[in-house]
This record gives sequence, C-alpha cells and structure tokens, in this order.
Amino acid sequence: MEQRFIEIQEYGPAETLKVATKELSADLKADEVLIDVKFSGINFADIYMRLGMYKDAPPKPFVPGYECSGIVLAVGSDVTRLQVGDKVMAGSVFGSYVSKIKLPSFQVLKLPEHLTLEQGAATPVNYLTSYIALHEFARIRKGDKVLIDCATGGVGVFCLQMAFEVGCETIGLTTSAHKKEFIESYGARAMTHDEFYAGQEKNFDFILNSSAGKAFRLQYHRLGMSGKITCIGMGQSVKDGKSSLVDKLKLLFQTPWYPLFQLMMQSKAVSGFNALNYFDEKEWMEKRLLELEKCPYKAYVDKIFPADEVASAHAHLEQKKAKGKVLISW
Amino acid sequence: MEQRFIEIQEYGPAETLKVATKELSADLKADEVLIDVKFSGINFADIYMRLGMYKDAPPKPFVPGYECSGIVLAVGSDVTRLQVGDKVMAGSVFGSYVSKIKLPSFQVLKLPEHLTLEQGAATPVNYLTSYIALHEFARIRKGDKVLIDCATGGVGVFCLQMAFEVGCETIGLTTSAHKKEFIESYGARAMTHDEFYAGQEKNFDFILNSSAGKAFRLQYHRLGMSGKITCIGMGQSVKDGKSSLVDKLKLLFQTPWYPLFQLMMQSKAVSGFNALNYFDEKEWMEKRLLELEKCPYKAYVDKIFPADEVASAHAHLEQKKAKGKVLISW
Repeated sequence: MEQRFIEIQEYGPAETLKVATKELSADLKADEVLIDVKFSGINFADIYMRLGMYKDAPPKPFVPGYECSGIVLAVGSDVTRLQVGDKVMAGSVFGSYVSKIKLPSFQVLKLPEHLTLEQGAATPVNYLTSYIALHEFARIRKGDKVLIDCATGGVGVFCLQMAFEVGCETIGLTTSAHKKEFIESYGARAMTHDEFYAGQEKNFDFILNSSAGKAFRLQYHRLGMSGKITCIGMGQSVKDGKSSLVDKLKLLFQTPWYPLFQLMMQSKAVSGFNALNYFDEKEWMEKRLLELEKCPYKAYVDKIFPADEVASAHAHLEQKKAKGKVLISW
Repeated sequence: MEQRFIEIQEYGPAETLKVATKELSADLKADEVLIDVKFSGINFADIYMRLGMYKDAPPKPFVPGYECSGIVLAVGSDVTRLQVGDKVMAGSVFGSYVSKIKLPSFQVLKLPEHLTLEQGAATPVNYLTSYIALHEFARIRKGDKVLIDCATGGVGVFCLQMAFEVGCETIGLTTSAHKKEFIESYGARAMTHDEFYAGQEKNFDFILNSSAGKAFRLQYHRLGMSGKITCIGMGQSVKDGKSSLVDKLKLLFQTPWYPLFQLMMQSKAVSGFNALNYFDEKEWMEKRLLELEKCPYKAYVDKIFPADEVASAHAHLEQKKAKGKVLISW
C-alpha cells in the first residue's frame, strides 16, 4: 500500500517541505486502526519544529503533525468501537502529515454528525488546548472575565465558544481591525491589540496568552485578584516566516521570570503548558478524546492547500494571514 | 469609654507587646457597629509584623489583628442587620487586638448558632484564606488530589474541611507524628514532612504551601499535569521566635523564581496571595463575609491566653506549638 508523507529533513524555510512516497505494510496490531487520511491539520508547533525551535520534537528526519481526518480502511481484531467506512478524526503525537495512518484506536474518534471532515481535521488539537487552558488551568466559571489574545486563531475560536457556553464575559484580541466582526460572531467583545494596550480593560480572571515575551508582561498587569495567566506559545518569535537568533534572545529577555514573592504580593497565578505532554496521561487523554465524539464546538477552517503545496500552507499560517485553521488535503 | 489595646511600638521579641489603655469616644458613624470584644485571633502575619518583616503593615505604632468576636454594644443609625446584644465575629484590616472596636457593619457577622465565641474569633481569616486558596486559585473539584502542608494550623484545619466537603483526596502534612491523628479526624490522610519528602506521593492537582523557600521547590515537583501550587506564607523564616538576616536571605535564595518557559515545559501553575489585599475588593469581600454567617466549618482553638499574656500567646504560635488557632481573651 502506497503512503504519501511529508517529512522534516532539514530545518529551514517552508520550501524545505516536500511530499515523498513509501510502501506501508497492511498489517495491523489488534488495537490499531488504519485511516485513509483526507485532511491533516497544521499547527504553529509544526512551524517551530520546521525551524528547529521545538525542543520536544523527534530527531530528524521525522513526519510532523498532530491531527487528521479521514475514512477507516481497516481495524485490528480487538477494535469494536469503529468500523470500516466510518468517518473519523484522530490525534497523533507527530506523524499525521500522511495520506494513510495507523493509530491506536483510542486516538481515533467518530466524527460528530454536525462536523465535516474538514472541521474534524481542525478539531483535536484546538479542543485539547482550549480544554486544558479553560477547564484545567482556569477552571472557568459563569461570570468570569476572560481575555483570549489569539482569538482569531484555531485555539482562539474554540476558546471563544467554550467561554461563551460557560457564561463568561470574554474579550478577544486581534491584530487586524477587520477580524473584529469574526470574533463578535462568537458572542465575545473584540478589540485590536492596539486598542487593548492603549485602553484600561483590566480585572481579568483569566488570560490566555499565546505569545510569551513583552505581551505576557503587559497582560499580566491586567489580571484581577486571584487572576490567572497561561501561556501556550511563543508567537512573537516567528516573523514573516523567519526566525533569527536575535529574535529568540529578545523573546527570552522580554519574557518575565516571576519571583514567588511578587506573585504573593499581587495575588496572581502564572502558568503555561504544552498540550503534547498530556499524551503521557493516558487515562485523562482517553477521557478527553472520547468527549470529542460529542464536541459541540465548530472549528473554523480558513484555507485548505493540496498536500503538494504544504510549503504555501505553512507560509500562510506563519505570516499570520489565517483566520482559524489551515489544512492540507490528500 | 475605656479601651484596652495592644500596640506594636517597636519591632522585636514577643515580650515587647504590652496592654495599654485609652479613652474611646462613644460616637458611631451611621454604618458602624461597636463591639465589646471577647476574643481576638492571632495570626502568623501578626508575628511577622512584630518582627518588622511585614511590608504592608502600617507605620509604628499600630494595633495589629485581623479578627475578633464579641457582643454588639451599639449600632449606627443605618444598621438594621445587627442588634445590640448580638453575638458576632468580625474581620478587620489591623486593629483587632483591642477590648472594644468600631467597625463598618459589613465586616461584622452574626455568629452561626453552632459556633462558640471562641471559634468565631478564629474563623474570619482562616475561612477567607482557605476560600481564596481552594475556591479561587485551585477551584477544587471532586476527585482532586490535594496537599495541605500546614494541615494542623488554623488555615489547614479549614482547608481540610473544605476539601473534604468537595470530595477531594487530601493529604495533610505535619511536623510531629503525634498530630497525625488530628489531621485524620478531618477525613484526610496524614503524613509527617519527613515521610512525605522521603516518599513518592505525587500528581497533586493542588498544593497549599505555607513556607516558601526550599519546601516550595520540593513540593512543586510533586504536582501533576495542570497542577497548581499556591504560597500563603513564609513560615520557614521564623525559628524559635527569632528572625535573623541570614535566615531571611536564605529564604530569599531558596525560594525559586520560575521562568515562564519552565512552567510551559512542565505544564504547571505557580501562585501566591495575601488575603489582606482582598479587602480592597469590596464587592467580593462583602459576599465572602456574608457567607460566614452560614459557615459550616469549625475552627479548632488550641489555646486561649488572657490579653495580659499576649507575649506568651505569640511565643506559643511562633514556636509551632499550636494545633489550630491561638486566641487572646479580654
């Protein structure tokens, strides 16, 4: 069986990514599922990996990718929850930039009826990241004042829906004024970064920060008593598809180190996480993944590139042109 | 009207505390309540203040104290919720080491029927501190694994009861093996600090740390994914009633500064707070204080000293001889 795949062979610009082909054996372990992949989701972490900035990435060469959707081609002898022909979405720890994939069955979820295969490929990572931020770190409650700084991104769109469902008062930030309407369509208030930093909105119960660096410091000061800020990325360190050592050092120096005594005097909480690491928590992860089969939130798919144009797909996300999610199709 | 009071005039050992007397006018503002104080609660923060280690204390001389209980002697013209003769407990921002006190009515709460006046004086600070830790920072849920490192102290006893009510799996730490039974009586598991650090208990969802310093660092490593640790005090810096500059510097150097990138790689949250600062959040505080009139938790009063023996009361708490709360009586 032929498998097309996209590998990170060398660190570098988007153009280094190419589709190659190899033979995939049809053998399946008892608990495995073989999927004919239709769409693979692209995440910012993939870009960091391609640039060699991702500490937890496997050694080169490796296939990146955390999520995909497709049709079940075959199931192992122990698998009863899924059948050949089922539409599914799946989460993987690397390896999903492929046309066919074998995965342990707990990582493969039936696509909820109200979602398309496109939305399915855009769901697992965003759902898990948003869940960890809002329901594990923040543990949001009705009436909480919440700031989502990457509100037009894939995770942001999920966070807006989750916070709305709980009854939070949410503000979403965007770099471009013309994306404000998009944020408002999810029941949140929208502000540009410029408006936010020039203004006085404060007393947030929770802030989701996606950039580290100076923005983290500025947002920290907008927390109210018992306020929590969580960082999920280092968005500031990639600009127009390039990453320089100077930018990395700048980010490192601009990102604050919080002495415990300062947190005590100011009654605030600082945190960060990497959703990938939660795959080691098998029980927790199985529970979350099963929830996905009833996921009430809808991913917003911005643009789909054929797999051969993966370089353009990376560039599109990297240059912050995307609203919601970017996919490749097989 | 004569008022007896205890002032911090000079920083120093417990013996510097003395009872003095002055005249208190009987005039009351429309929203004030005058209380004939029966008991005043002693907190660790009072000891830091006496030692000159408390940054937010008023300039000397000042009367310390955050809480008391007693009988209402008079109410201002606007006060309808309370009547002369009511048994009450009250929270104050300093000033409660006195035999008679005037306070804004929202700070004065009717004593729940199941509490004694002794327990009342031991309730406001411990309730508020525990509430902020468990219901604001941790936002505990059923099944959470919780560590209370000061489990035999005033706050600890409240935390054990709150966590039990929610259905957490709680471990309480103590320095002395003979206090383990006391912790277990609140439905928690008990370990000595030695047993805990030699053992392997980990994956805590929440840790309440009361000491900063090296213990904070060690406890941090016992957190699970999305685990949160909150520091509420610097207990390690006072030993046998003395505080040396060397001890203070040691504490400062042993208390970690967490770079955001480390928190992200380890998916953990670090925080601290000072319950005193929450008095600026009037709406929040009024809500919490009113809850106190239905407080289901019972303070454990360890020992009561006559006001004239305030020095012994301080020494008793400072030398970690107390289990639960220490009071002075008027």
